[in-house]
Amino acid sequence: MISADGSLTFRELDQAVDEMTSELAVMGVKAGGVVAVLSWNSAPFVAVVHAAARLGAVLLPLNARLSADELGWQIKDAGAAFLLHDEANTMVAEGLAAVAGRPLKLLGLGSPFEGLRMSGVRAVSDSSMTARRQRTERRFDLSEVQTILYTSGTTGRAKGAMLTYGNHLWSAVGSALNLGVQTDDRWLACLPLFHAGGLSILHRSVIYGIGCVLHESFEPARVNKAIDEDGVTIVSVVALMLEQMLDERGENPYPASLRCVLLGGGPAPRPLLERCAALGVPVVQTYGLTETASQATTLAPEEALSKLGSAGKPLFGTEVRVLRDDGAEAGPEEPGEIVVRGPAVTVGYLGQPKATSRALRGGWLHTGDIGYLDAEGYLYVLDRRDDLIISGGENVYPAEVEAALQSHPAVAEAGVIGVADERWGQAPLAVVVARKGVVVSDEELLSFCRERLAGYKTPKRIVLAEALARTAAGKLMRGELRQRYG
Amino acid sequence: MISADGSLTFRELDQAVDEMTSELAVMGVKAGGVVAVLSWNSAPFVAVVHAAARLGAVLLPLNARLSADELGWQIKDAGAAFLLHDEANTMVAEGLAAVAGRPLKLLGLGSPFEGLRMSGVRAVSDSSMTARRQRTERRFDLSEVQTILYTSGTTGRAKGAMLTYGNHLWSAVGSALNLGVQTDDRWLACLPLFHAGGLSILHRSVIYGIGCVLHESFEPARVNKAIDEDGVTIVSVVALMLEQMLDERGENPYPASLRCVLLGGGPAPRPLLERCAALGVPVVQTYGLTETASQATTLAPEEALSKLGSAGKPLFGTEVRVLRDDGAEAGPEEPGEIVVRGPAVTVGYLGQPKATSRALRGGWLHTGDIGYLDAEGYLYVLDRRDDLIISGGENVYPAEVEAALQSHPAVAEAGVIGVADERWGQAPLAVVVARKGVVVSDEELLSFCRERLAGYKTPKRIVLAEALARTAAGKLMRGELRQRYG
Repeated sequence: MISADGSLTFRELDQAVDEMTSELAVMGVKAGGVVAVLSWNSAPFVAVVHAAARLGAVLLPLNARLSADELGWQIKDAGAAFLLHDEANTMVAEGLAAVAGRPLKLLGLGSPFEGLRMSGVRAVSDSSMTARRQRTERRFDLSEVQTILYTSGTTGRAKGAMLTYGNHLWSAVGSALNLGVQTDDRWLACLPLFHAGGLSILHRSVIYGIGCVLHESFEPARVNKAIDEDGVTIVSVVALMLEQMLDERGENPYPASLRCVLLGGGPAPRPLLERCAALGVPVVQTYGLTETASQATTLAPEEALSKLGSAGKPLFGTEVRVLRDDGAEAGPEEPGEIVVRGPAVTVGYLGQPKATSRALRGGWLHTGDIGYLDAEGYLYVLDRRDDLIISGGENVYPAEVEAALQSHPAVAEAGVIGVADERWGQAPLAVVVARKGVVVSDEELLSFCRERLAGYKTPKRIVLAEALARTAAGKLMRGELRQRYG
Repeated sequence: MISADGSLTFRELDQAVDEMTSELAVMGVKAGGVVAVLSWNSAPFVAVVHAAARLGAVLLPLNARLSADELGWQIKDAGAAFLLHDEANTMVAEGLAAVAGRPLKLLGLGSPFEGLRMSGVRAVSDSSMTARRQRTERRFDLSEVQTILYTSGTTGRAKGAMLTYGNHLWSAVGSALNLGVQTDDRWLACLPLFHAGGLSILHRSVIYGIGCVLHESFEPARVNKAIDEDGVTIVSVVALMLEQMLDERGENPYPASLRCVLLGGGPAPRPLLERCAALGVPVVQTYGLTETASQATTLAPEEALSKLGSAGKPLFGTEVRVLRDDGAEAGPEEPGEIVVRGPAVTVGYLGQPKATSRALRGGWLHTGDIGYLDAEGYLYVLDRRDDLIISGGENVYPAEVEAALQSHPAVAEAGVIGVADERWGQAPLAVVVARKGVVVSDEELLSFCRERLAGYKTPKRIVLAEALARTAAGKLMRGELRQRYG
C-alpha cells in the first residue's frame, strides 16, 4: 500500500494491523462492539478497518463532511462506544464525546501512527510496493456484520446499512470475475474510505493480494501523477472527478498501464463517455449502492464502446431486474425501478425493521433508482426515482437534461430539478455552473437545449450559480437544489 | 472454446448447451437424476457438463480408461439412469447397458454433435475465440451436488466424491484470486474432463469468462503448438506431461503469452522444476485432490522460484494443516498427514457414511497424503501415506527416491515401492524406464543413487521396465507396481 504515510508491503501492513488490534483491545474493543472512525483517508484508517475485523468488532466509518448533529445521530443509532479520529477531526470528535450522553472512548490516529513508526515508515520504492500474497489463516463468519455504512434516505434520518463479511467478499469476488485480477494491479483509492466505493478497494486489495494507492482526498493533478508514476492500473471515480482529471490532463494521453477507470456514482453524461472514448481512456461504467457493498453491475472493459452509456450486467452472483409500478417485470427498454438480489446485498438497516422490509422484499433490494434493461440484459440507469420529474404526464429524467447542458462547452456542471408548474404539474429547472472565466447567458443555454431535447424536457428556467452541492462521493445533491430553488 | 470440433464463442456454446439440454430433457433427464458420461474430451462433453447443470441433474464423468467391471460398479453405485458416450466408447457403453441389470438409456454424442452442426461449426479464427462475457441469470443452490467423481480408494472399490456447485465455485474463485484472471486468458485442457483437474477448467472458463482450448487427449507436440498458436496462457499438467512437453520442445523457448504452467498430480521432481526455472517456463506447483474439486494449495506465480518445490499456500477460503499420528498439529518442517478444510472440500462419498466420517472429521478432510508446512506456512507434499516405506524405523518417501533417479540423464521414468526385507522390515525397490534408445545398467543407477541419497533410501534393487502404469491423469500407480514387484 502506498499512502502519504509511506509505502507498506503486505507483511508490514499485517504488522501495523496487529499493533492497531492490540491498541484497540487495550481500549476495550471487543467482538460485537461498534467502532466509529471519523477520518480522511490515511494508513491508520486502513489499519483500523482490518484491526476491527480481527477483533470481530463492527466498523462504523463516518462521513467526515457531515454536521456534528448528523454524526451524533449515527454514533448513537449504531451504539458506538469508541470513536477513532484523525488529527483534522479532533475537535469534532471531542465535541461528539461531550454531547454523546453515554461513554464514548476516543483515540487519535496519529499520522504516521505508532504502528507505522515502530515498523519504520519507508519512502515509496518499487520493491516495497510489490504485492506479496500473504494468505494467513483467519476465519470469518460470512453472515456476521463487518461494517455499518449510513446512507442518506430521501426522507428522515440516514439509515445504517449493515454489510456482512459475505457482502464484502462477494462484492470483491464479483468484481474480480468481471474486471479480472492481474498480479501487477494497483487500485487507486481517491474516493473516501467512509463510502462503499472507497472502502471496497481496501477489501479487494487484501482479498486479491494487489496493491492499493491511497490518497487522502481527491486532487486531479495528484491522481494523474499517481497514474503516471505509481503504477496505478485501476482507479474508481465519479463523473465530476473524471471530468476534472481530463481537464487537468489536457492532451497528454494516459499510459497503457492504466487498464480501467471505474466510473460510478450515478448516470454518466454521454459527452464525458464520448470524450473518454476519443482519448482512449479505458472507462468502465458501474452501478452500485452502499446497500450492495459497491458495484452491483459493471460493464466489461471490452464492451466499453459497444455498450456506451450502459452500466453493464450484474456481477457474478448478483441479479438485477427492472419493475413496473405494479411490481411486474418491465420489458426490454422499458424504464422502471431497479431491484437487486444477491450475496452482496445488505442484510438490512440497523434497528429499522420497517425500512428493511420496505427496501428488501423477497430478497430483492428496491433501489429507488430508475433504469431499463436492453434486450441483451444490459442495464441503463436513468435517475433516482425521487428525482424524476413528471411534466404533463411525461417522464423527464434530470440526468438526461443535465447531460445535454454539460455537452455545452461553457458548462462545468448542471443540476436539474422539478419545480411546480401550473400548466404541466411540474417542469424542469436547471442550475448551471459555468466553466471558470467563461460567460454564458441563460438564453444561449435554453436555445442549446431546445435543439437537443424534446420541448417537455427543456428547462423552463436556467439559474446560473457558483457551485452545486455534492456529497463527499461527488454525487449531486438534488435535494439541496430543491430546497433552494424548488 | 476451441476444440477439435471447431471454435465456439460463449454465445454459440450457450446455444449448443440449450440444444443439449433439450435433448437430455427429451431423453427423460430430470432434476436430481444422475447422468453418466463416458467420453474423451470433446465439445459435446462440455455441452453435457453445462446441460446437466441446467436440468439440475447430477453429472457422473466416467474414467474412459477403466475396465467395464469398474465402470459398471460406478454406474450402479451412483444410480445413473443415463449413459452418454462418444463414438470411441460405443461398444463399452452398449455392453454396460446390457449388463446393468436396470434400465440405462444410452445417447451417442456425435462429433461434431447435432447442436454444433446446427449452429454451424466454424474454423478456428481469432475473432470467434474472443471470450465474451455472457452473464446470464441462472440460479444454482450452492449446496446441491453438481458432480460425482469416483476416486480410487487404497482398498476396495472406488468411492464417489460428491462435489457441490459451491465446491466447484469456490475452487474457481480461489484459483482466480491466486493466479489472477486476465481478459485474454485461455486455459488449455489436455487433462481428461473426467478428472477434477480437467473438469475444473470448464468451470473456470464460464465463471471467469475466459477461453478454453480443449484437446481430446494429451499430445506433447499438440500442446506445444497450441501454446504457440492458439494463445494459450495457462495449461494444467502433471509432471510426466511437462517432461514430455519439454523433451519435444527442445531449445525453443515458450512465448511470453504462456503465463502459467499449473503443475499438479503429485510431488514434482526437483530436477524438473530446476529445468523449468533454467528455461524460464512459468511453472507453478499445486496440490489438490478430487475431494477438493482440484487445487487446494497453489504457489503464487511470483514465488515459483523462491519457494521451489513447495505447493504453496491454501487458496482463499481453504485451510490446510499437517497432523501427527496422534492428531496434534505438527510443528514447522515436521511431516504428517495433510488435512484440508474449506468450501471447496467435498460434502462426502455417495452412500458411504462410514468412509465419509473417516475422511471428514470436524470438517477436515484427511487426505492420506504426507507433507509438511514450513515456518511461513508453505506446504511441501512428500508422498501418499500408503506409499510410505518404513525401513529400519526410518521414513523413506518414494517420491524423493524417484526424483533422484529421474535426475539421471538416462532415466525417463521411475517408480519406487517398499518390499519386504528381513533385516529392515521394508526396503525400497525401484522400477525404472530408460529413455528411448538409451542403455543403462542397474549398477550404474544404484551407484548414482548412493551418491545422492542416504543409505536407507537407496533402492535395494533396481528393475528395468518398458513402461510404468499410470492413471489417466498421469499419476503413477504404485499399487500396480506393488502387485507386480512387491
